[in-house]
Amino acid sequence: MIPYTPPLDDIRFILTRLIGLEALSALPGYDGVSAEVVDAVLDEAGKIAGEIFAPLNTTGDKIGAKFDGATVTMPPGFQAAYQAYVDGGWNGMPVDEALGGQGLPWSVAMPVQEMLQAANLSLALCTLLNQGAIELLSEHGDAALKATYLAKMISGRWSGTMNLTEPQAGSDVGAVRCKAERNGKHYLVKGQKIYISYGDHDLTDNIIHFVLARLPDAPEGTRGLSLFLVPKILVNADGTLGNANDVRVVSIEHKLGQHASPTCVMAYGDQGGAIGYLVGKENGGINAMFTMMNNARIGVGIQALGLMDRACQQALSFAETRIQSRDLTKPKEPPVAIIHHPDVQRMLMEMRASIEAARALAYVCAFAVDVSKKSTDAAAKAAALRRVDLLTPVIKAWLTDLGNEVTSQAVQVFGGMGYIEETGAAQHMRDARVLAIYEGTNGIQANDLVFRKLARDSGTAFNELMAELNGFLPQLAEDEKFARRHGQLTAALKNLQDSVDHVLQLAASNPAKAASVAAPLLRLMGNALGGFYLMKSAWLAAEDLKNGAGDSAFLERKIATAQFYADRILPYCGALATSVTQSSAVIN
Amino acid sequence: MIPYTPPLDDIRFILTRLIGLEALSALPGYDGVSAEVVDAVLDEAGKIAGEIFAPLNTTGDKIGAKFDGATVTMPPGFQAAYQAYVDGGWNGMPVDEALGGQGLPWSVAMPVQEMLQAANLSLALCTLLNQGAIELLSEHGDAALKATYLAKMISGRWSGTMNLTEPQAGSDVGAVRCKAERNGKHYLVKGQKIYISYGDHDLTDNIIHFVLARLPDAPEGTRGLSLFLVPKILVNADGTLGNANDVRVVSIEHKLGQHASPTCVMAYGDQGGAIGYLVGKENGGINAMFTMMNNARIGVGIQALGLMDRACQQALSFAETRIQSRDLTKPKEPPVAIIHHPDVQRMLMEMRASIEAARALAYVCAFAVDVSKKSTDAAAKAAALRRVDLLTPVIKAWLTDLGNEVTSQAVQVFGGMGYIEETGAAQHMRDARVLAIYEGTNGIQANDLVFRKLARDSGTAFNELMAELNGFLPQLAEDEKFARRHGQLTAALKNLQDSVDHVLQLAASNPAKAASVAAPLLRLMGNALGGFYLMKSAWLAAEDLKNGAGDSAFLERKIATAQFYADRILPYCGALATSVTQSSAVIN
Repeated sequence: MIPYTPPLDDIRFILTRLIGLEALSALPGYDGVSAEVVDAVLDEAGKIAGEIFAPLNTTGDKIGAKFDGATVTMPPGFQAAYQAYVDGGWNGMPVDEALGGQGLPWSVAMPVQEMLQAANLSLALCTLLNQGAIELLSEHGDAALKATYLAKMISGRWSGTMNLTEPQAGSDVGAVRCKAERNGKHYLVKGQKIYISYGDHDLTDNIIHFVLARLPDAPEGTRGLSLFLVPKILVNADGTLGNANDVRVVSIEHKLGQHASPTCVMAYGDQGGAIGYLVGKENGGINAMFTMMNNARIGVGIQALGLMDRACQQALSFAETRIQSRDLTKPKEPPVAIIHHPDVQRMLMEMRASIEAARALAYVCAFAVDVSKKSTDAAAKAAALRRVDLLTPVIKAWLTDLGNEVTSQAVQVFGGMGYIEETGAAQHMRDARVLAIYEGTNGIQANDLVFRKLARDSGTAFNELMAELNGFLPQLAEDEKFARRHGQLTAALKNLQDSVDHVLQLAASNPAKAASVAAPLLRLMGNALGGFYLMKSAWLAAEDLKNGAGDSAFLERKIATAQFYADRILPYCGALATSVTQSSAVIN
Repeated sequence: MIPYTPPLDDIRFILTRLIGLEALSALPGYDGVSAEVVDAVLDEAGKIAGEIFAPLNTTGDKIGAKFDGATVTMPPGFQAAYQAYVDGGWNGMPVDEALGGQGLPWSVAMPVQEMLQAANLSLALCTLLNQGAIELLSEHGDAALKATYLAKMISGRWSGTMNLTEPQAGSDVGAVRCKAERNGKHYLVKGQKIYISYGDHDLTDNIIHFVLARLPDAPEGTRGLSLFLVPKILVNADGTLGNANDVRVVSIEHKLGQHASPTCVMAYGDQGGAIGYLVGKENGGINAMFTMMNNARIGVGIQALGLMDRACQQALSFAETRIQSRDLTKPKEPPVAIIHHPDVQRMLMEMRASIEAARALAYVCAFAVDVSKKSTDAAAKAAALRRVDLLTPVIKAWLTDLGNEVTSQAVQVFGGMGYIEETGAAQHMRDARVLAIYEGTNGIQANDLVFRKLARDSGTAFNELMAELNGFLPQLAEDEKFARRHGQLTAALKNLQDSVDHVLQLAASNPAKAASVAAPLLRLMGNALGGFYLMKSAWLAAEDLKNGAGDSAFLERKIATAQFYADRILPYCGALATSVTQSSAVIN
C-alpha cells in the first residue's frame, strides 16, 4: 500500500498565509500559538497519522469490527493505535486547558483531524464522535456529571456516542420514540436506537452514550426531546467502574465501507430501564444537540477532505510509476508513466484543485470557529458565529460531495487495478460514500442553508462574507498576471450573489421551489467560495515568490492549481446559477 | 428486494416514435419487424430479465463466483438462469437467421440487453462478451473455424471470451507479450492474461477464448498482434469435445463489484503450448479486434443504462414508501413519504432525466448500427457507419460516467439505509464502477473521440449529425410550448459546435492540449445530444397528446422530464464549453 504523507506544507500555508498566525495568536488564550508550536503539533500529528493510524487502514477494512452476540471487538492493532493517540494527549487538543485539554485552536485541531481521518477514517471516527460528546457535556452538563465524566472523556480514556436515529426517525429526529421516565435522581431510558457509530468497541473501558428520548409528558416533535447521558458501565461515587448498565448491542451493520467502525443497533432498558442522567433541561434535548451540530458537521467535511487527499496521493503515486503507452507528442519514444498523458493530468488536477479549494474553505471556517469562541469583541464574535453557521452546511455537503467524486476519480486513475480491492483505491470510495449521508444528509444541509442560514437572517451573514470577498477582488485586478482570474472570479461571485438573492425571494414566496434549487445553490456556494480562497492563496503564493519567501516549487504549484480551478471548475458556477434562477417549476 | 420492472413503455416509445418502426422495417431483412413482433420480443425479454435473471442478482453479489484452485463455480441458480436464456434462443437474437440466429435488429437487441444487464449484470456480462466473440468469428474466422464453433456460440451452448490484457498491457494493447508459434495447421499459444471476464465458469461445457498474441517474427506494437481462437476443450473433427487444451485459470480477482462475474488470470501453454487457431491474418489481430469494438463499447454503455434504471426504480420505490418529516408547505399535517420533499424529487428527476436522455441517444445509435449493417444504399450505409463510429465513444463514456453518478445518487435517496449492503442500493454502485474503466477507459474514449472520430474525418460525421439536429430545431420553435426549450437547446448545440470546432483546430496545432480537453468535450457532446433526443421525444409526446394517442400520464411525464433536463442539466453545456475553449494550458 502506498503510504500516507501528511499534507503539512499545504496546511502550514493556509495557517500562516491565508489565515495568518498573527490573527490566531491575537485571540485570548491563543497567544502561545506560534509558528514553532504549530509546526511541532502538525509534525507530531502527522507522525501519529502516517505511522500509527495509516498502516492499519487496510486490515481494518478487510477484517472489520466483529460482533459476537454480546460485545464488539475491533480489528487487530486498533487498541494499541488508539492508546498511542490517548497517551499523546491528542484527544483533548482543542479543549480548554482548564478542563484538562491542550487549549489549541480549532484552526490547528481541524487539520490534525484531517490527517487522522485520512490515515484511518474508521478509527478516527471514534475520536470525532467523542469530540462532539465532550462539547455537549461541557456546555450542557451539570457540575456533578462533568466531574464524573468529562476528564476521562477529554483524555480519551472513555469514548462518547450520539444516539439519535431510530427506524422511523432518521432525518426526522422529532419522530424519536425512545422513552425516559423520572426515577429519583436519575431517569430510566428504554428503547432501540440504530446506526450508532461506536455503540460498542474494546478501545476504552467505558462508553458514554448521549441518548435522545422522550419523557411521558413531553410535547410531540423535537420540542419534546430530552438528552440523557447513559454510561455503558455505571460509575461509582469514587469514580471507579461499577455494574453494567441496562444497555445492550443487538447487532452491527454490514456496510459498504467503514468496516472497522462498528455501526450498532442499541437496545436500552431491556431489563427495565437503562440508568440515564439528564443533560441540560427536560425537553431541551434538541437545543443541546444543535450546539454540537456545527462542529460535528464540519468534522464530517474534514473526513471527506482527508479521504480525498489520501486517494489523490495514491492515484498520483500510481500515475508516476505505471508505464503505459507512448507520449502523444513523442510517438517514437518508449512508453511513459501515465502521468504524462494529458487526460490523466486532467484527472489529477481536478482532484488536486478540488482538494485545495475545499481545504482552504474548511480552515478559513475553522478560524471563524476560533473567533466565535474566543474573541472578546462582541461584534466580531457574533459575526464569526454567523459565518460559521452559514458555512457549516456548505462545508459538510460540498466537501462530502467532492469526497464521493474525488475518491471515485482516484479509482479511475488506477484503471482496472482500481476495481481490485487489494489495490486499496476502492476502499476510500466505499469509506467516503456515507459522509454525504450521515450527520444530516446533504439534502438536509441544502435546506439548512436556504431556510436557516440564508432566509432566517435575510442574507446578512452571506452579504457580510460577500462584502469581504469583493473587497479583496481589486487586489487581483491590479496584478496583470491575475487580471484574467479576476474576471473569472468576479463572474463566479456574481453568479453566487444573483442566485442567493433569487433564492431569498423564493424562500418567502415559494418555499417548495426554493427547496428544489437548494442543492445546486449549495454546490454553487462551495464552488465559488472554494475558488475564491484558492485564488487568494495563489495570489499570496505569487507574493511570496516575488519576495523569494518559501519553496518556489510549492508556490508555483499552488498558482497552477488555482488557475486550473478557475479554468475548469469555476465555470460550473454559471451552469449552477442558471439551474437555480431559470428553472421552471417542473418537479412533479 | 424491490423487483425489477422492465421499462417497456419507454423502450417502445423510442422504437416507435423517435426511431420509427417504419424506418426499421424498411431495411432489408427487417421487413418482418412489426409492432407486434417488437412487443412480443420485449415482453418476453422483460420476463426473462425480471423473473429469471433479477431474483439472482443479490445472491450473486453475496456468494460470488468461487475458484477452487482449478475451476470456477458460479453462484446457485446461475446455471439454470443461463440455460433458460439459451433455451429461449436469446443469445442469437441479433445474429442473421442464415447463421442460426433470430435476425432481429440491434435496435431491438440492445433494449433486450439493457433489461438483462439491469436485472443481473454479472450474469448478463457473459452474454455480452459472447456477442462480441460471435461477431469476431463471423467476420474474421475461416470457414472451418466457423463450421466448428459458430453455431454453438450463437446458440449460447459455448461462451466466448476476449483476452487482451496483460500486466504491462492494459490501455496499451500494443505492449502484449503473449507468444504464439506456428505448429503445423495450428499455433501454440503461451503466456499469461489478466482481467479475463468469464475466463472460466460452469455455465457451458466449453469456453472459446479469443487471445491476442505475438508471432516470433512479428513487428512491434499493435501491428504485430495476431488473434487466436483457443478453446478450453479441444473439439474433435465430429464436433464432440476432446481433450482439455493447455489453458489454466491461475486465480480470480477480489473486486469492488460484479462479484458473480469471474475475472480470471489465465495461463496459456504451461504444458508446452495451448493449441490455437488463427482468426483473420497473421499480424492482423488488432484490426479484427476493432471490428467488435464498437458494439462491445456500446454494450458497456447499455450496461450502465440498465444499472441506472434499476437503481432509479429502487430509489423511487423507496421514496414512495419511506415516511419521514412533514411536507414543507403543510407543516401541520402528518409526516409524508419522502418523495414529497423537493430535494428528493430533484434527485429522482436528475436520475430519470439522465436515464431517459441516455436511452434515447443509445437507441438512436442502435438504429444507426442497423442501417450501417443492412442498408442497400451505399451512401446511407457509409453515413450510418460514420455516425456509429462517432457516437460509440460518447455512448460508452458518457453513459458509464452517468452510471457512476446515478447509482451513487440512488444510494443517497436511501439515506442511511443506502449504506447498508442488505438494502441492495450499494451493489449497483459497486457493479457500475468498472464500466467507466473496462473496454477502454473513459479517458481512452475521449481521446478516441477527438483524434479518431473528429479529427480524422475533419468533423464530417459530426457536422452531418449537427445538420440533422439543426434541421429539426425550427419545429420546436414553432410550438410556443417549446419556444423556451428551443432557445435552451440551440444554445447547447452551439456550445457543442464551437467546442468541436475549437478542438479540431487544437488537434492539429496542439495535440496535448486537445487531449487535455477531450474529457469535457465528450461530456458536453453526450449532454447536448442526449438533451436533443430527449427534447425531440418530448415534442413527439406532445404531438401524441394532442392527437389523443398513447397513455397521457406517460406522455406528460416524458415532457416534464425533458423540461427538467433542459433547465437543470443542459446548462452544463455552457460550463463545459468554457472549460474546453477557454482553458489556458496550465496542466503540468
